[in-house]
Amino acid sequence: MTVSYRLSEIVAQLGGRVMGDAGVRITQIATLENAQPDQISFLTNSKYRAQLAATKAGAVILAEADADETGLPRIISDNAYAYFAKVSALLNPLPEAKPGIHPSAVIGAGAKIDATASIAATAVIGDGATIGAHSVIGEGCCIGANAIVGSHARLYPRVVIYRDCVIGDNLIAHSGAVIGADGFGFAMDEGRWIKIQQIGRVVIGNDVEIGANTTIDRGALNDTVIEDGVKLDNQIQVAHNVRIGAHTAIAGCVGIAGSTTIGRYCRIGGSAGILGHLHIADHVEIAAFTLIGKSIREAGSYAAIFPFAKSEDWRKNTVHLRHLDDLVKRVKALEQELGSLNLESLKRIP
Amino acid sequence: MTVSYRLSEIVAQLGGRVMGDAGVRITQIATLENAQPDQISFLTNSKYRAQLAATKAGAVILAEADADETGLPRIISDNAYAYFAKVSALLNPLPEAKPGIHPSAVIGAGAKIDATASIAATAVIGDGATIGAHSVIGEGCCIGANAIVGSHARLYPRVVIYRDCVIGDNLIAHSGAVIGADGFGFAMDEGRWIKIQQIGRVVIGNDVEIGANTTIDRGALNDTVIEDGVKLDNQIQVAHNVRIGAHTAIAGCVGIAGSTTIGRYCRIGGSAGILGHLHIADHVEIAAFTLIGKSIREAGSYAAIFPFAKSEDWRKNTVHLRHLDDLVKRVKALEQELGSLNLESLKRIP
Amino acid sequence: MTVSYRLSEIVAQLGGRVMGDAGVRITQIATLENAQPDQISFLTNSKYRAQLAATKAGAVILAEADADETGLPRIISDNAYAYFAKVSALLNPLPEAKPGIHPSAVIGAGAKIDATASIAATAVIGDGATIGAHSVIGEGCCIGANAIVGSHARLYPRVVIYRDCVIGDNLIAHSGAVIGADGFGFAMDEGRWIKIQQIGRVVIGNDVEIGANTTIDRGALNDTVIEDGVKLDNQIQVAHNVRIGAHTAIAGCVGIAGSTTIGRYCRIGGSAGILGHLHIADHVEIAAFTLIGKSIREAGSYAAIFPFAKSEDWRKNTVHLRHLDDLVKRVKALEQELGSLNLESLKRIP
Repeated sequence: MTVSYRLSEIVAQLGGRVMGDAGVRITQIATLENAQPDQISFLTNSKYRAQLAATKAGAVILAEADADETGLPRIISDNAYAYFAKVSALLNPLPEAKPGIHPSAVIGAGAKIDATASIAATAVIGDGATIGAHSVIGEGCCIGANAIVGSHARLYPRVVIYRDCVIGDNLIAHSGAVIGADGFGFAMDEGRWIKIQQIGRVVIGNDVEIGANTTIDRGALNDTVIEDGVKLDNQIQVAHNVRIGAHTAIAGCVGIAGSTTIGRYCRIGGSAGILGHLHIADHVEIAAFTLIGKSIREAGSYAAIFPFAKSEDWRKNTVHLRHLDDLVKRVKALEQELGSLNLESLKRIP
Repeated sequence: MTVSYRLSEIVAQLGGRVMGDAGVRITQIATLENAQPDQISFLTNSKYRAQLAATKAGAVILAEADADETGLPRIISDNAYAYFAKVSALLNPLPEAKPGIHPSAVIGAGAKIDATASIAATAVIGDGATIGAHSVIGEGCCIGANAIVGSHARLYPRVVIYRDCVIGDNLIAHSGAVIGADGFGFAMDEGRWIKIQQIGRVVIGNDVEIGANTTIDRGALNDTVIEDGVKLDNQIQVAHNVRIGAHTAIAGCVGIAGSTTIGRYCRIGGSAGILGHLHIADHVEIAAFTLIGKSIREAGSYAAIFPFAKSEDWRKNTVHLRHLDDLVKRVKALEQELGSLNLESLKRIP
Repeated sequence: MTVSYRLSEIVAQLGGRVMGDAGVRITQIATLENAQPDQISFLTNSKYRAQLAATKAGAVILAEADADETGLPRIISDNAYAYFAKVSALLNPLPEAKPGIHPSAVIGAGAKIDATASIAATAVIGDGATIGAHSVIGEGCCIGANAIVGSHARLYPRVVIYRDCVIGDNLIAHSGAVIGADGFGFAMDEGRWIKIQQIGRVVIGNDVEIGANTTIDRGALNDTVIEDGVKLDNQIQVAHNVRIGAHTAIAGCVGIAGSTTIGRYCRIGGSAGILGHLHIADHVEIAAFTLIGKSIREAGSYAAIFPFAKSEDWRKNTVHLRHLDDLVKRVKALEQELGSLNLESLKRIP
């Protein structure tokens, strides 16, 4: 199945305005470099202007400021990148999933599955679970007892949602994601760890995306909460009782320790970490590979990356880190020694 | 199903002593802040004393030293946190799993499944595998050929145990855990990697918990070993031939490279790493985000966290790390220059 | 089933030459320390020579230079470690999988499954997917619509391959691996993230191994590409549009951000990271725990590990990192002050 749209039809749906031939028919999105005459591309970074000049694309999406950079048919938008995202969705509707329950799926007693939902082969829906309208539960997914999944969810194969968790509408969850496993809570008692039962849930808002093999633990006593519009990449670990504020985006391999609260509209780089029981303000950016060990009260950009170097240079410089306190003391001693001297008589005459 | 206990019944089972009304009936545990009159809470950190004063809990668990901090009905215990953990288990028995094999499960030839065990929908038990008494194998779990799982195991959906691995009693394994995949072993031969067959097993003791999406590789020649009482959080990677000593607890996202031995009662923080072929002593604590690159022979606390800062401050300071060796040389040159001077005559008269 | 070979039969298949009794029969590989008389071991590191002297192995594999280090029957090879790897494969053929489709597997319309392939219990093969000759698709694997898996693949239980991905011959993929999930691409639009449809594929060459719970995202517009002979350990995250050059080996927990290109024959240590849109040359080695934030144009070894220490020493030294720029300024001030003085008269007479 190939979808196609004229530029005029695209702007009728998505806004913006056309310059040049609005009748050009578009079937797919592509990079400037690879686009074909039936494809549309975009420019959001001026360093690709040379590619714009050379592109074979049938049309491009441009910001107002770049409107005259090409003679190609073009759509002008205030936010060319977001416009491009919307066109990508228009031209690439998700494969339809047939409503109904595959014969190999296993449905628990009292499960409430909307007639428009699709339950794929070998999926297991627990007792009393709810699956909302138009939701697609992929192959091998396991939805725990009494869990609730809202409408228009798209769960790829082998997602697990533990019992009692509550998910809003429009969830996208990729394969291997695990929502609601026990948080890591133990008390030491006479040389043995005693497990603390994790009786909270995971509660997820609307419009959330969860990457492959990401894990979100259920709360110990209260709930773990993921607010509306949060986007989580692959292999992220969210510990018990974390709260992630609306529209925060987190890149792959990040770990967030227990009971930490992250604000709204934060952006967290790959493999970063946040220790437990901290508060991160709204609109905080955290660089990749950065460990946050204290609360951040102020919006802004934070980092803690150790700079890489050729191994021999790294070794030569890094050895001194173990003696940095000594070095500071040596500098202080030099300052005191010089400070104790009357140097007037030694000043060079300029 | 709601479980409830009077304080008198709790101390009859778990020890400790009651102060105040021992007839108070408790149905659940909760934080001081959120507890209701039919719930019990606890105080183990004096900074929450204000919450103790304000709590609506029906009862609390306190250390001896705090016994008079409230007039609420209370249980006094030497180890209030461990007591709380035990109460959490008492009030929250795991959902019962019906003994028997779900019709959609697939059982290999010669598999020995105890009559009290429960094999959930779509689970697959390999040829010759053994499942012990009262063990629960969750939906979609795959137990490899000739693997042995002891009694009272609780495997959540989609755990994989590869062939020949041996697991003790009381295992808890969360969804997506993979036990016994091949270790990462190759030899370079004329420009190509030749795989070294991984013929060891994973051998796991009693009372071990394994978090969601954690991976424990089988040994190359000998076995990978996880001793009794080890607790592993989510997304931990344990490479081939690692040995983890009894009662060690490891937080999420830690990576442990091949053939490293970790002692007993260690605690390892989130996203830490340990290189291969090292020995870590008993009772070692490793901070989050710390890479251990040499063996640790002495109990104690170790760290290697690069401090975070506002990005502009981080940049300003970090640039000098590439020149630290030069800086040390400059300080040495200053010391030598001053040391070469006869400064007696310049001393200020105090 | 036990396989056994005489040394003479081994060299007939794998080359090298025998010294001593070529009729010794070998059934397994083992370490020098644990080997039994029916087992073969190897020496590639001279620090194990004492173990060679004491081993009970029936035979050993040695380099030419070590040929006279023992009187045991031995195979001499230029590359003893690679030879050992080949013997490990000879003695440990993978368990045979019966060709055919398990009755509990679910096969989509138009799927092309070679008659010699094996589809295990509860596996799901999507519409139009292709499974090549002698490939083994493990329990619970999900192969997406129109995906292509070459010949002689070995997918362990619960591997997911999303729709349209293309895999060469001889793939080994361990449990929980996810190939082809959506890349992490969003555009911010009036306070909301708009998803960019990920329409590229994952394209994987021949002879690739993928570890447990590793994730490789599909491309945004173009494809994500893994070239021939690449070896990926567990829990690696490969973002959209990454290209990994042939015969590169990557240890566990590494994260590679979007659109980065990694050369051939690179070796990347555990938990390292590489930021997006970078180019890494061929034959680059990256140390464990190292973040690469700029392109590397030159082969060689690179590192960025913060050295660990006892926590009190770490704290004492690390506090100065926040003031490194000040320290450099203080050293500069000292140099300028000294430089501004006429010190001739103060020189000590030697």
